[in-house]
Order: sequence, then structure tokens, then C-alpha cells
Amino acid sequence: MTNKLYYGASWYPELWNSSVLEEDIRLMKETGINVVRIGEFCWSVLEPEEGQIDIAPFAEYIRLLHAAGIDTVMCTPTPTPPIWLTHGHPERLFMDEGGTVMGHGARQHICTNNPYFRGRAAIITEHLARELGPLPGLTAWQLDNEFKAHVAECMCGTCKDLWHQWLEQRYGSIAQLNEAWGTAVWSQTYQRFDQVPQPGPAPFLHNSSLRTMYRLFSMEKIAEFAGEQAEIIRRYSKAPITHNSSVAFHLDNEQLYRNLDFAAYDTYASQANMHAYLLNCDLWRNFKPGTPFWLLETSPSFAGSLESYATPHPGGYLKAEAVAAYALGAGAFSYWLWRQQRSGSEQPHSAILSAWGEPAVGYADVLEAGQARRDIENVILASQPLQAEVAITYSDRAKVFLTTEPHRKLNYRGLLGDFYKRILQLGIHRDLVPEGGSLDGYKLLFTPFVHYLSPEYMQGALAFAAAGGIWIAGPLTGGRTGEHTIHTDAGLGELERVAGVKTKYTYPMEGTGTVGEAFGISAELSLWSAVFEPLAGGASSVGVITEGLTPGLSFLTEQPYGQGAIVMLGSLPSGDDGDSLLRAVIEHYARAAGVRLRSDPSPGTIVCPRRRGSSEIWAVVNMDGRGGSVTLPRTGADALTGSPVAAGPLMLSAYEYRMIELPAD
Amino acid sequence: MTNKLYYGASWYPELWNSSVLEEDIRLMKETGINVVRIGEFCWSVLEPEEGQIDIAPFAEYIRLLHAAGIDTVMCTPTPTPPIWLTHGHPERLFMDEGGTVMGHGARQHICTNNPYFRGRAAIITEHLARELGPLPGLTAWQLDNEFKAHVAECMCGTCKDLWHQWLEQRYGSIAQLNEAWGTAVWSQTYQRFDQVPQPGPAPFLHNSSLRTMYRLFSMEKIAEFAGEQAEIIRRYSKAPITHNSSVAFHLDNEQLYRNLDFAAYDTYASQANMHAYLLNCDLWRNFKPGTPFWLLETSPSFAGSLESYATPHPGGYLKAEAVAAYALGAGAFSYWLWRQQRSGSEQPHSAILSAWGEPAVGYADVLEAGQARRDIENVILASQPLQAEVAITYSDRAKVFLTTEPHRKLNYRGLLGDFYKRILQLGIHRDLVPEGGSLDGYKLLFTPFVHYLSPEYMQGALAFAAAGGIWIAGPLTGGRTGEHTIHTDAGLGELERVAGVKTKYTYPMEGTGTVGEAFGISAELSLWSAVFEPLAGGASSVGVITEGLTPGLSFLTEQPYGQGAIVMLGSLPSGDDGDSLLRAVIEHYARAAGVRLRSDPSPGTIVCPRRRGSSEIWAVVNMDGRGGSVTLPRTGADALTGSPVAAGPLMLSAYEYRMIELPAD
Amino acid sequence: MTNKLYYGASWYPELWNSSVLEEDIRLMKETGINVVRIGEFCWSVLEPEEGQIDIAPFAEYIRLLHAAGIDTVMCTPTPTPPIWLTHGHPERLFMDEGGTVMGHGARQHICTNNPYFRGRAAIITEHLARELGPLPGLTAWQLDNEFKAHVAECMCGTCKDLWHQWLEQRYGSIAQLNEAWGTAVWSQTYQRFDQVPQPGPAPFLHNSSLRTMYRLFSMEKIAEFAGEQAEIIRRYSKAPITHNSSVAFHLDNEQLYRNLDFAAYDTYASQANMHAYLLNCDLWRNFKPGTPFWLLETSPSFAGSLESYATPHPGGYLKAEAVAAYALGAGAFSYWLWRQQRSGSEQPHSAILSAWGEPAVGYADVLEAGQARRDIENVILASQPLQAEVAITYSDRAKVFLTTEPHRKLNYRGLLGDFYKRILQLGIHRDLVPEGGSLDGYKLLFTPFVHYLSPEYMQGALAFAAAGGIWIAGPLTGGRTGEHTIHTDAGLGELERVAGVKTKYTYPMEGTGTVGEAFGISAELSLWSAVFEPLAGGASSVGVITEGLTPGLSFLTEQPYGQGAIVMLGSLPSGDDGDSLLRAVIEHYARAAGVRLRSDPSPGTIVCPRRRGSSEIWAVVNMDGRGGSVTLPRTGADALTGSPVAAGPLMLSAYEYRMIELPAD
Repeated sequence: MTNKLYYGASWYPELWNSSVLEEDIRLMKETGINVVRIGEFCWSVLEPEEGQIDIAPFAEYIRLLHAAGIDTVMCTPTPTPPIWLTHGHPERLFMDEGGTVMGHGARQHICTNNPYFRGRAAIITEHLARELGPLPGLTAWQLDNEFKAHVAECMCGTCKDLWHQWLEQRYGSIAQLNEAWGTAVWSQTYQRFDQVPQPGPAPFLHNSSLRTMYRLFSMEKIAEFAGEQAEIIRRYSKAPITHNSSVAFHLDNEQLYRNLDFAAYDTYASQANMHAYLLNCDLWRNFKPGTPFWLLETSPSFAGSLESYATPHPGGYLKAEAVAAYALGAGAFSYWLWRQQRSGSEQPHSAILSAWGEPAVGYADVLEAGQARRDIENVILASQPLQAEVAITYSDRAKVFLTTEPHRKLNYRGLLGDFYKRILQLGIHRDLVPEGGSLDGYKLLFTPFVHYLSPEYMQGALAFAAAGGIWIAGPLTGGRTGEHTIHTDAGLGELERVAGVKTKYTYPMEGTGTVGEAFGISAELSLWSAVFEPLAGGASSVGVITEGLTPGLSFLTEQPYGQGAIVMLGSLPSGDDGDSLLRAVIEHYARAAGVRLRSDPSPGTIVCPRRRGSSEIWAVVNMDGRGGSVTLPRTGADALTGSPVAAGPLMLSAYEYRMIELPAD
Repeated sequence: MTNKLYYGASWYPELWNSSVLEEDIRLMKETGINVVRIGEFCWSVLEPEEGQIDIAPFAEYIRLLHAAGIDTVMCTPTPTPPIWLTHGHPERLFMDEGGTVMGHGARQHICTNNPYFRGRAAIITEHLARELGPLPGLTAWQLDNEFKAHVAECMCGTCKDLWHQWLEQRYGSIAQLNEAWGTAVWSQTYQRFDQVPQPGPAPFLHNSSLRTMYRLFSMEKIAEFAGEQAEIIRRYSKAPITHNSSVAFHLDNEQLYRNLDFAAYDTYASQANMHAYLLNCDLWRNFKPGTPFWLLETSPSFAGSLESYATPHPGGYLKAEAVAAYALGAGAFSYWLWRQQRSGSEQPHSAILSAWGEPAVGYADVLEAGQARRDIENVILASQPLQAEVAITYSDRAKVFLTTEPHRKLNYRGLLGDFYKRILQLGIHRDLVPEGGSLDGYKLLFTPFVHYLSPEYMQGALAFAAAGGIWIAGPLTGGRTGEHTIHTDAGLGELERVAGVKTKYTYPMEGTGTVGEAFGISAELSLWSAVFEPLAGGASSVGVITEGLTPGLSFLTEQPYGQGAIVMLGSLPSGDDGDSLLRAVIEHYARAAGVRLRSDPSPGTIVCPRRRGSSEIWAVVNMDGRGGSVTLPRTGADALTGSPVAAGPLMLSAYEYRMIELPAD
Repeated sequence: MTNKLYYGASWYPELWNSSVLEEDIRLMKETGINVVRIGEFCWSVLEPEEGQIDIAPFAEYIRLLHAAGIDTVMCTPTPTPPIWLTHGHPERLFMDEGGTVMGHGARQHICTNNPYFRGRAAIITEHLARELGPLPGLTAWQLDNEFKAHVAECMCGTCKDLWHQWLEQRYGSIAQLNEAWGTAVWSQTYQRFDQVPQPGPAPFLHNSSLRTMYRLFSMEKIAEFAGEQAEIIRRYSKAPITHNSSVAFHLDNEQLYRNLDFAAYDTYASQANMHAYLLNCDLWRNFKPGTPFWLLETSPSFAGSLESYATPHPGGYLKAEAVAAYALGAGAFSYWLWRQQRSGSEQPHSAILSAWGEPAVGYADVLEAGQARRDIENVILASQPLQAEVAITYSDRAKVFLTTEPHRKLNYRGLLGDFYKRILQLGIHRDLVPEGGSLDGYKLLFTPFVHYLSPEYMQGALAFAAAGGIWIAGPLTGGRTGEHTIHTDAGLGELERVAGVKTKYTYPMEGTGTVGEAFGISAELSLWSAVFEPLAGGASSVGVITEGLTPGLSFLTEQPYGQGAIVMLGSLPSGDDGDSLLRAVIEHYARAAGVRLRSDPSPGTIVCPRRRGSSEIWAVVNMDGRGGSVTLPRTGADALTGSPVAAGPLMLSAYEYRMIELPAD
């Protein structure tokens, strides 16, 4: 699986007749497709009547593909249970927060915790694993499809019982739960676990602990289902297992991938949202460090459904996307979908071929990206993405806390994406590191928007600082306990004690005329903020509030810690000045931390650094179609052609990419 | 019924005491009212207890009116079933898509497919028909009131069973249905008809075929109900039967009127939305060609309810509305309502009299319009509206397809209205012809926004073109099968084969910088579009894409066909330039087709052409209150006064109308 | 209770341990807190298992507070019934209009009409009253908390039965109800009371009478519950009873306070909404005339919850708020809350102390306001707020009518607030007088936005006018009967007969180009309006319509009545000109009525007039933080220092307040 650079597409051979399939395979080869994903919605084809299972057609598809030199990712079909599993069984179906039971007809309409569903899912997966696992060409497994993309937490009766068991396991006694959640606040106090409600309709807001815990419970359960399924497959197949996830779904990706073999995701970001595309690469690389991640679904041109469609990619962008992904660590770049759906609800989604079998609007781009893959394959396979020196913590648990407590409609994904974008634009190579990931090798760590800092995380971050790293915590970080309550010892709890500050106040700053100054830049401060008083002999104040309700206090402090430092960022500067101020903060601490892995690409152009032996390879890609440049620090060579490339400005035309090998400094 | 020009109002005599009724009738005569509509909500008055039916008061109302020289339209009272029909019977009530059961209290709260309701409706209607049918003065029947105005498809248990029967009838076997709908896409495959869900709550979109078919099923059922009711009435009464419908409701008007005797509608368009008012006249004239349509409800000044109200008509506009309707083929112009409601939920709706029995704010306009009716009656009765040379296809089935697949919130009514408006403003006389209507006598046919072209329609349109007509198909036309799936043979299926083009791509154009050029005008292209390559020896390219993803391909082509031509319009030009381009297309093909029935009214003024013997009568009406003009092609005479009118500019003052008789050319 | 000026906070001692409580009490004294509100959400603490009631801890809290010189307001805990009352009993829970049953988890999730709930509520309240009633320091009782803040009308089965009983009591016979409601309109006619629905889901609008009556029924029931609870307490305690209400809740405050001893409210108006803060003072003073009202909840800095937060008050504003409230008649000014919640859903709400026990962001302001209270206490206790000469009728019943019939989203609170603001800004001292309140002593009465004028109200207003007052009725006043139907005798019914006018038309004026002129000012007229023809020998026309559909008719008329006059204001002038016109109307009639109690504060500054013996005391407060001024009509003295103050301009700095004693004129 790792001796190829995969270029793929999703294929639904069960929907078409054999002459179409032959034509498809012929064209796939022409197009440069070398891997195909099949099967994720085919349960009713495999098992049209309960217990009548026939896997043979899929074995045949895999054989046909293999004969054509195309590998297969086989999916389990659990996102779309057949009608015999759901008809007449509302108790097996997903129930939403309002109590509405989903019907058959789309996908994810079943409760994935329903024991009967789990049983039938185990049986069909076992059949697949047993019969397809041994086939040559089967390169990987995908579990299900986009877990929790359409639905969040299920509120059905099964989940209610499991919730009560989960609570009992977590808290031991109901008194413990009552104390942890502070249920006495509104007489919510429970006498028994079976009384604890699911967070359904209520006249006003639910208890924050209840809300957050129900989300964590739900995430744990879906990871558990994935684990169960993976275990079944492993009994029969050595092919690695993944899932096509996303930062948009209602799950804990880190927890999910713990049970799986490699990480993968889907993304349909438009060019206008280019940084979101790159964020995914910088994140997914780090769920299974050292293993290439896969981009399992992306559109050849535009996403679409009966009710909406996106804007087609401009010509050339697809190539830039593919090269960027490969250069940033992707082992595969795969389209959804090969042939346009003729029925269902996604007919208006772009595909490589139309439903009538001809090249669709992005076809030329698909060919171009395929060619690029061929051109770079050797260089990519012979090199590895460089670990960044700057880490930004990514946490789906932090997302849960912000979902429970969104203040003025705050959104973890939006906040984090915006924060990430700034570091990207400064040309600093970066890793989004999952909350539980290792911090070894990093010099600078950002922990923004993480309401709750677990003891494990604190320990890791402190060890990182003690060893010489600079840890920048905030904004919105550290102010909640693991039970989603407020600390009663100090505003930011444990964090405060190591940061050499006292949190004087936490309060919402918008509309209060608060101005902060740091590094000679003044800017308005926003969000719910924490303001600090450096302790005597403690932190030094780096950013001071000059106007507003709390003048003289700090929003940015720095405390030496071991060989390194702990920097508290209590607020989010906003507006253009705020942007400048944040950039100054990043620049300052990147310098202070000795960050070296950076470059000066013009806006819209990126540098993806890799290592081959002792030299670095810089994959430089123009993503915005306006062309761009970057300064090469020393003379190198074109890794694809071997031609020398001089130090100094390297110019790129629209969507051009270059692979420049730079010898060790 | 056809020897009068009716001027009417809705009346609720059952709500008022006899002295009010006497006063009402006296004032109706004063106001010029010669027809009154009664009874559509009176079921509980007729049958206060189940089975205790007394029609006598309504016979008396009709006699009183007749004695005063006023005819009656009698309505069946089925939109508001009495409490004894619904209380304690939730299973008889309408259930919406979210599963909510409607309660008693407004109207249309019952499932019109419920067999018990159908039975009781048959009984009450039979009583009415038997007892009132023979009465002199009873000029027509109206079934129910605004079918499906407040509700769309019912999801109750009765409908579920009927749906399964309907599917079985349509598809014969479940395998057929699965194949037709492509249910394998998401393992939706059904084993039996009774498993096919109604399109209720689901985590994501339903299958397009399911959605569309459920809508067609619902439309068929309401037409069936109308047919059943009409049949009962016909046993006892010779008076013609209609229904007050609208383009806004959830029904197939063409199918509905197939079972009825004449067409009628309600409209509350404001002056700002004047083209929508005229669109109705140009459409309703063609549901029952040769028979005058009726405008059964329009406001004397403004529409209103407890929760909203419209802007009162400016003084003079009512007269213009009435004259335009009569001139465009209306046999009646009737108000809702005579006397303001004192209770219920529509008290704030304008009426001719207030609830306290005095002239309401539009009263002077009602008198003025009544006078106009008297003035033009002879001329109108002695002439007929001229068939247009330009036809635009209207299809409630096309509306269904767009409702199922609205892309970016597209709306059939809005799209078609906008398309219509342009032709109106060019001074071209036009017919909106129902999908199944005859194309005889037309020269130019537009078929925009019709996703699915039925074989019958194709046959008609091709015969039309073969005989010399120019058929302009698109935008958004032809790209779906009758099952609401995508063609697998060619982008636009059968249509493509006759149009001399190959559809290279279909894709969404907004945001792609696509520019098309035709007739020397360049404009941005929008919507989901089809782009063509003219076949060798096939169509000629008239409009070419000059910028965007597919430069060089055509969005407008022309293919000779028999004596005529097929023009493909693959996209919708947008913005001011797009408007110019579309006007150029219309102008060009109107000329090419030899369209003669047009004039040059200034904006806000319209010409409604009629025929009397060998001469034309032009009813010219200023609708916008700013006055206007039109050029008379030759010398004529004022049809009302006989005075000669010179060729050349005819000037009108605000809201003025003229009837000009033009001798044969 | 009346020999102190209270400065308070809400406290939840049941949530914290004893060392926290000790610290709290110590700090309360430091902060100047002399009253504390406890217990409103503590039911599960008092009665953790059904029937196991232990009130002792609360007795101890009261003793501890008393020992520290702090009085207690004890609350009944009924807004948050314990889990044993609700678990497994959906029939006891609140059901909303859509039929959704609320679950345990927030507050107000129970149906307050449920008999089992009422029984348990009576028991817990009796325990509290019996055991705490005799305690020294217990200064008052509060029932429940913010009745109907989160929920409106309950639709459960219990309410259905009570509704039917209520209807039977109101109407006697179903025929009466049918007649009163005009149910024949849409065949809504009922055969029996048990058939009358609650206004749940329906395809279109419910009957206005049904809607309005259900709201009145619901309001009556919650007042009944309050009455029941108060009666229990009175058996054991002499401390007066109140409830913390608001103009925002779904209840009839006048009816509610009829059963209680003093009036109180909560408000979280921001500085930007300053007039709403003052409106509350001017209203709540008049629910229990002669008794100080209490402001029971307001934020020390900003309101907040998991899902939203307000902007913190600017420094200094709190003091201005407190002084304004005391000067306008408040006996207490009390914060929500003392110590930030550590759990639940309101952690982000500002408090005096943080959850970790330190001064929170508004602390300095709390100290400052506390100091102000101490400074003014003697002067305030020795004086009384002056009754205004101008009364504006406030009616929660009028709110109900406008909720049922909001036209274009009209909102009683918004309309009335806007009307009030203008009078406030003109420096006219004013009372918002509840609909049933006495009009003795007033000179000018405004009755805007009261759809239904009851016979009692008419009688009072006419007596007021007969005795020399000027009564200005409108806009939107008088056009509905008590059953929420339209009059059938005259547009404005009885009102018209005494106003010397005939209502020619009522209609919506927006968009019609209607212009009215009065006092030399022309302005556009808006809203649903009534236009008048003065009767011969009747009213004189003061404001005439000059453009629009009804030129020459009046929108403002004046009719002498006894010693006074009745002024009809048929429309609402809008825009800047409309504002000028309305100001001119107010000015004119204030002069005509001999209104003397007014001053000329600069914008953002207010004057609160009080009486001490024969002299007036003007509390002048700058509320907008920009400083301000007012002209003193004669030489006076600083009531706090005794220093003389010259006649003429008195200047205030930002948020400054002054107490100026002016000797009798």
C-alpha cells in the first residue's frame, strides 16, 4: 500500500451493467486511476433478504480491477442498512433531539448502537472480510462512510439505556454524578442513573455537563462500533483499515483512529476556502504519524445534491490540490465519484464521467492531476514529509465543549481554521497535532480554544515547555473542568498555577471598548477573555490592556518554565489591527523558539517541506491561480528533472508546482 | 352563463341575520354585483350534527339573490369539515412531512383521501346538488375552496396505503420500481410495495424519484376527489362546475380541470407584481380553451389576515385589473369578499363593506370597475380573445420536478414568471399553454424549466416544428427522465437527438465566470446549464461561450426541423446584459417565426387583442397609473363609442382603458 | 421592610460548603448587601425523596444572615420540581404548541396546572412557611421564579380539561361560545365544550377568539396558582409576598399582583436600552401604588448563559441605575447573582464574586452603587415618589390581543416602549398605569395599542375626561370586542360614540403614500389605521390626511367631554417627521391639560421627582455617561449635603446623580 502513490475514485459497479463496467475500467486506466473504492452503500445488493448473503459479485469486481492493474478499497456497507432491517422497527432508527424518528430513505437513519443492527453489521462484515480479504488487489478497507455526517447524537431508547450504563461506569454512584455536574443548581439532582435524561426538548438550556457528557458518550460509542468492525475484518484480512472522516462530523477522530490502521478524510472545500483544504492535510498527517493519510473523497469539479451545488473548480486547481496533498503526506488522492449517479439524491454531484458515460466538465483537470501524480510519484515515495516545528493542538473534545457552550454562536472549526490560516500565511510549516499526540520534536505549541485541559495534556505540554518549548495557551483555553463546570480554585485552574499569573477576571470583551497592546501594536480585543495579573516573581506582562474595563491588566504574559516558557493569550485581538497583533505574537515566539522551518511564499502559494536523506525537498505549489514566488535559501536542484535551481526567488505560474531539492544547510 | 359579463363577490349569508342580508342585496345591486359565490365553508351550518342535513336556507339565499337579478355560484363546503367529522379521529386528519397531525381550527385539516371523509363529502354534496341544482339563478358550481393551498402532501396512514396501491398500479412489480428509481444507490431497495416509505423525516435527502412520485400521487388523488364530487353534482345539475385554483397550490391544474367544466382561479397579486396578475389571465384562458375563465377571488383593495396584510391598491387600479381580465378572456371578475369578517382569522382582509355595514376603503374603485364592466360588456360578449402566436408551456409537473430538485432554491413559479414577464414587456401577445394543450395555430413555442419532456409532449412539439413552428427548449429542459432520474444515453435524452447537438457537459455556471455571446450581446450565464457541440451537418451554433470552463461550446443552437426549427437554449443569461440577450433571442425568433400579434405599448401599459368578425379589437389598458401609449398600426374606431381613431400613437391617462376596433389589415 | 433601602443579591447557599458561606457573608457585609434572596431552585435539596422534607438548612442560612445584619427574601422552589415529580410522568410535563413534551433538565418543564404538582407544591410551601415564617430576618417571600419566562401556554391534557371547564364557566352554553367567537366562519362550530381544541398545529391560522381566550385562560391559571401559594404562606407568615416578574413574560401582571402584597421584577436591559430600564420603574411602581416595588434581579455587569451573553455595563452605570430605581420608587435593588455558578447553564452570567470567590469584573461598580444607596437612604426613606400627571395605560391583555393579531409582526412591548420613550425624552414625569388602575390625580391619559377597551376601562376613562382630563385614545385602540372580534355597529364601537367622530375606514397605511398633517407638521402615517369624519357638532379635526387614499379625513380629532376632552389618534406617524408630529401632539396636550411635572433634562439625563413634606426633591441622574444638565426652576438645596443650589442650569458629570430639594413654588 505504501509503494504507490494512489490516484483513485469511488465506483458503484453494483448500479451498472457489465458493459458499462468494462468501459469504466478501460477509461480508468486511461485516466490514470490506480485505486477504486467500492461497496459502502451496497448492503441491499449483498443481502437482499435477511440472511441471503452473496458477496461473489464484489469478488468479481475486485478481480476485474486487479486484472487491469487497479487496486481496491473495500468498504463495509453499514451506513445504509437494507429495508428488512428497518421496516416495521422504529425502535432501531435514529431519533433526533426533538424526538423525531428518522425513516428509511437516505443514510445514517439507523441507531448504530442498536444491538440488532450491530449483530447484522457484524455478520455482513464478516462475510465481506472472509470472502474478499484474501483477494489480490484488495489494498485497504474502509469502515462505513462518513460516520455521523448527517446526524449527531441519537436519542432512542437503546441509547438511553447505554447512556445510563455509561454514566454508571463513569461515576460509580449517582451522588458522584450529582456532585460532578452540580445538579443541585436547578433541582436537577438525580436519585438513580436511570432518571438522567438524554438532552431532549426542554424550556431552556440543559446543564452543560449533561450536554457535554452525552456528546462524549455518543462519540465513544461510534468509535466502539468502528473498533468492533475492525476486529472482525482483522480476523480474515491483513489489509489496513481506515474510515473516511472529517473535522465536520460529530465524532472524536483521535479516538476513532486509535482502533484503525490509517487515517483518511473527505473534503469538498472550494478554492475560496483553500486554507481549509490545507488544514486537513496538516491535521490528518498526524492522526497516525509516520503513515500516509488518504484523501478518500474530493470532487473532480464541484459538490452537489438535489438541493444545492458548489462552484466548479477553475481549470488547473485540481492539479494543485493533488500535488499539495501528496506533498503534505497523502498516500492517495481519490475522487467522489467516477460516474455520475443516475438516481438517488446526488445526481448533481460532479463526477469524472457523466451518467451517460462521457467525460464530464472536470475531465481535463483529472487527466492533468493524474499526470502530475505520475510525475512526482518517485520523488514522493523516496521522501517523507518533514515534521513541523510548530504544533497546533486539534481536539474534537474541545469542539464538544464549544458546541455545548457556543457563547455568541462560536464555532470551533471556524475559530481554529482562522487561527491556522494565519500561521499558514506566515509561511511557517505546521502540524495540527491531535490532543493526545506526541509533542516530541516541536519548538512552539499553540493551544487555542481548548476549554478543558486534561491532566494528560497538561503533563505533556509542561514537559514540552520544561524541555525548551514555548507553549502558548489561549484564547478560551483552560477555563473549564473535565465535567464542563467552572473551576472553583482559580479562573483557569491548574494552568494558572504554572503560568505565573493570577486570572483577575474572565468576561466578554466585545462592545466594551477594550484595547490591548503588545509588540507596539494596539488592537481591539474580543471573545470571552481572561485578564491576568502577573504574579510577583512570576510571568512578565507582554500584552497590556490600555483601554476598557480592566486597564493595566495583561492579556498576554510570558513565564519561563524549565528550559522553555508558558505564554498565556487571554483574549483574541480582532479586526485588521488584531490580525497584525496576532501575527506579531506568532512571529515573535516563532523566532524565540528558534523555528527554522519556514519560508516566504507569496499569498496563495505554499511550500510543503519533505526530507530525502540529508536534503530537504520543497514542494512549492501555486494554489490561487495567480502565480507566485518563494525565496530559495540556497542553491538546489529540481527534484523532478535534476536541473540546478539558483538560490533566491523562484517564480511559479498559475497553479504551477515545483519540487526543489535543497542540500543540507 | 356566457351571455353575461359577471361581476361578483363572495358572500357568507349564513353568518349574518336577515336584516343584514336584505341590506347586502340592496347594496349589491347598487354596486353592480350580478353574481355571488356562497357556501364554501358552511358545512357545519348545513349539517350541524352528523346526518342532520338542512339545505333550505341556502335555497332561500339563492332565491333572494335571483329575485334581485343576481346569479349564484354554489360551492361545496368540503374545505372545512365539521367538528363531528374530526373530533376524536386523528386518523382522519392531515399529517405533515414532520409527522405532525393537524387539529381542527383552520381549514384543510382533514386528509381528503380519508374514505370516511369522502363518504360524508359525497352525501353533503349530493344533498346540495339535488336541492339547489334545479334552482333558477344557480349559474355554476365551485368545488371546495383552494385545494392544497395551505397543505402539500399528506403523510397519514390512509395515504400510505393508497400510495402503496398507486405504486403497485404504476410499476406492477417491486423490481420494476427498484429499477426505475435506481433504489440500489443507497441500499434503498424495497422487497415489497408496502415498505416504500412516504417521504418523511430522514437524515439527508430522499431519493428524487420517491419525492417526485409522492407529489404526483398526491396531485392525482386531489384531482380524483374533484372528479368524484363533480360526478355527483352532474347527476342533479346542468350548471357547469369549476374550482378556484392557483399556480401557487400543490396540485396539477391541468389534471384537475380535465374533470371540470371551466377554469377559475384566485389571485391577490399587488400592483407591484402586475405581471403575475396578467400571467394568470394568459394561463387560465388555456385550461379550457374556448370557455371563459373566471377570476373567482381577488381583493377589492388588499389581502389580509391576523398575521399579515398587503398594501391597498391605489385608486384606479381595480378598474384596470377588471378590464384587463375581461379583455384577456375572463367571464367573471369576483371579489373576496363582500362584507368584512367579524370573526375568524381573516378580519383584516379588505372587503367591499366593513363588518359594520359601510363602504370600505376600496368602495369607490369597486363602483368604478363595475361601471367599466357595464361599459365594455357588449363589446366583450360580441368578441373573443385572440389566440396568441407565441406559446409558453406551463406545467405543474415541471413544478414538481423543480420542487424535488431545487438546486440553489430555484422556484418554478419565480423562474417562469420572470421568463413570461420579458415576453409581456416586448408587447408580444402570448398564451401560457398547459403541458398537454394543443399547439395548433402557434408559431413560436417556449419550453423553459421543464426537466422532464414526456413522449406525448415531445411528439406534439416535434409535430409543431415539423409543421413550421420554432420550438425553443430550455433552459433546464429535458435533462431528467419521467422517473426523475438522469438519462444514461445522452445528457438531454431524446431531445438531443432531434436538436442536432451533442450535450458535452451539464454543470452549474454561477461563479465560473462563464460568458456567452449571441446576436452581438455578451452576458454572464447562470443556472445549471447544458453546453452543446453542434453535430456535423446538424445544428448551427447561435450562442457561443466565450469565457469560462467550456469556451467554444454553444449555449444556443438552431436546427432546422421539417418546415420549422428546434432551438436549444442551454443556459439562462443573467444580469442586465443577460436580459438584453434574452430579449434579443425572443425578438429574433419571433421575427423568424413570423409573429405578427404584437404591439409596442409603453411600459406599464398592455394590449389585449380580441377578434370580432374580421376585425381585431385591441383593449389597451394602463396598469401602472402613469399613463402610457401604444402605436395603432392603422386607423380604427373606438369600439365603445364608434368614434374614429387615427393610426399612430394612442395616448392613455393613468389607469385609462380603450377598446379600439381595427379593421382587417 | 419599608424602613430600609435594600441592596441585595441572589444567593445559593445550598450549592456551596460552609466555609464558602462564611466567606460570602463576610464579603456581603463589605459590599453593602443588606438583603439576600434564597431558595427559588432548591426543591430537590429540601425534599430529595418524595415526602422527605428537611427545611432546617435554610433556617440556618437565614439565622446566619440575620446574625450578620442581612435580611432574607425566601423563595418557594416551584420553578424546578425534583426528578421524582417528573420522571416517568410525561403527563405532568409542559407541552408546547407543536405538541412537544418538555423533559427534565432546565426549569418550568412542568405543567403548573397539573393537580399532582399543585399538591406537592402546596406541601413544600407549607413546610417552608411554617418553619421559616417565624424567623427574624425573613423580610419577604417570593413565589416561584419568573413565571412563564421560558414557556407560554401549556397544551397538555390537564390544561385541555381545565380549558373546557373555563370555557363552560365563561360562556355557559356552547351556543353562546359559537356566537361569541363567530365559529360559523369556517365551520368551526362546536357541539360540546369538550370539542374545543387547544390552539395546536393547524394548516392555517386559528380563530382569533380561540387564540386570545386560550392565552387569557393560561394567564388566569398562573395567577390562580400564585394565589393558592400565597394563601398557604399567609397562614404562617406575616412577611409580604411578591413575585419577580417582567413585561416580557406570558402572564397578566395586574391579575398576578392582585393576589400578592408587593410588586417586583427582573430586568437585564443594557445601557443601550436605557429607556426600557426606566419604563420598568415607571410601571412597577403602579401595580401596588403606595408600596415600594423591588427590582429583584439585575446584572452586576452583564447577563449570560451557555448560548449568549450581553455586553458588560460601562463603569459607573450601575450606580446610575440603582439611584434611578430608588428615586423612582424601588425599595430594593438586587443582583443576580452573588457568586458565579460553577455548573448548570448560566456559568457565563456575571456575578459579584467569581466561582473561585474573588471580585468579578463589575465589583467596583457594585461597591460604588452600594455607597450611593447608603448616601441617599435617608432622603429616600423620608420622601415619596411623586405621582405623575401623565398616565399611559399598560395592559398585558392588550399584549395578548396583539400577540394573537400581530399584523406585520407588531409587538406590544416594542410599540409601547417606543411610545413611552418619547414622553420620557420630553422630560415629562409619567406613570405607566395598569389597565385596571385608578386614574385619580392624572391630567392626561394615553391609551395606545389597546385593541379592546373593556366597559370598566371605558367608564374610568370617561369619568377621567368628564372630570377635566384629556384622554388620548389610539393608535390601534378600540377596534376589537372583548371576544377578539370586530365590532358590527361601528369601527371602534362604543369609543366612537363618545369621541364625536365616525370611523370612515380602517385600513393598513404603509405603502399607500398617506400623509397626515397636524400642528403644522406633515408626516407619513403607518400601521393599521382608523380615519375619521368628525360628526356634525362633534369633534374638531386636529390632524388631517393630505395625501393618500382618504384625503380630507382626519387621523387626529378632539372632542370636548365634560370638563375635559377625548382625543382620537387613529394612526401612527412614522419616520423623523412622524416623531416630530407625535412630540407636537404630546406637547400640545400636555400644555392643554396643564401638566406641570416636567423638566428639561439633556438627552441621557433624567429627573425623578419626589415629595418631602411640602417640597419636591428632584433626583437628577446622568444615565448615558456623557454628563448632562437640567434647569432648576428655582433655588433649592442639595438634599444630601444641605448646600444651597441656585436656580438655572444644574450640570452633572458622567453618571453623576444629585438630589435637589426644591421648596414649594
